[in-house]
Amino acid sequence: MTETIRIIGIDPGLRRTGWGVIDVTGSRLSFVGAGTVRPDEKAELALRLCEIHDGLAKVLSAFTPDEAAVEATFVNKDAAATLKLGQARGVAMLVPALAGLQVAEYAPNAVKKTVVGAGHGAKEQIRMMVSVLMPRAVFDSDDSADALAIAICHAHHRGPARMRLAAAAR
Amino acid sequence: MTETIRIIGIDPGLRRTGWGVIDVTGSRLSFVGAGTVRPDEKAELALRLCEIHDGLAKVLSAFTPDEAAVEATFVNKDAAATLKLGQARGVAMLVPALAGLQVAEYAPNAVKKTVVGAGHGAKEQIRMMVSVLMPRAVFDSDDSADALAIAICHAHHRGPARMRLAAAAR
Repeated sequence: MTETIRIIGIDPGLRRTGWGVIDVTGSRLSFVGAGTVRPDEKAELALRLCEIHDGLAKVLSAFTPDEAAVEATFVNKDAAATLKLGQARGVAMLVPALAGLQVAEYAPNAVKKTVVGAGHGAKEQIRMMVSVLMPRAVFDSDDSADALAIAICHAHHRGPARMRLAAAAR
Repeated sequence: MTETIRIIGIDPGLRRTGWGVIDVTGSRLSFVGAGTVRPDEKAELALRLCEIHDGLAKVLSAFTPDEAAVEATFVNKDAAATLKLGQARGVAMLVPALAGLQVAEYAPNAVKKTVVGAGHGAKEQIRMMVSVLMPRAVFDSDDSADALAIAICHAHHRGPARMRLAAAAR
């Protein structure tokens, strides 16, 4: 019997943090759930970070994934935007790590290459390919589609990522 | 009798996160504690964020501050460094917010102006002025001295900051 691994992908953002959960059995992928955490834009930064924390903590406790993957992106042109993204990303990585999960990171191009087959896919291409790879997938935003793409990317790369994590722990 | 407010200042960083706790009674400042969280540099990013979380959570439970203040800084020239700082900062703001504390933000120049009297103080000036303002202060790093300076800055500005937060909550 082949082991089933449940993976959560997270696409962090201060305005919208997408999440997507998939099951991987051998090379078979199946959709489990997806959604978007949308912190109150009028709230103070610290409270918005709390909303991301609480939203992702609920998802983790509801779906109990085995491994997590987060997109490693930054906005090159705008330091203030990069700092904001970093803050959301810090919380997005913290929540699964506090739950004891390994958290892998993937560059946006690696995610696009895995899902679309090229390093520079448009948002629509990612949505379409996620639907092709997992016909039952339902998502409510580009961010949750991206999160599913990140989970799919991790499903394809988790062997080596696991070895890398094990090597780093030594 | 004048109320005493306990403030924690935090200077976030992925390599070193400084913290400093002071008591404010009227216009009198007194040193309570300071230190530095130093995550294992060889650990995976997610685990380093956990160390910052756990370190600050311990400090909050030991010192039970009433309010928190965090420096709002970014590295303009280097997007990767800004993203790293943002991640640490996200966790540094999250921990007191999860504990129900209001978290104020101050630009580095505001902190320097409050403590040193000019917008561009060197690290040594900040250490010296923190010692002048609180002769009993003991700190183990530039980061914990900066954290105390952030707490002092909040002590001076917390009136308006409080009103701003109250206005934002409406």
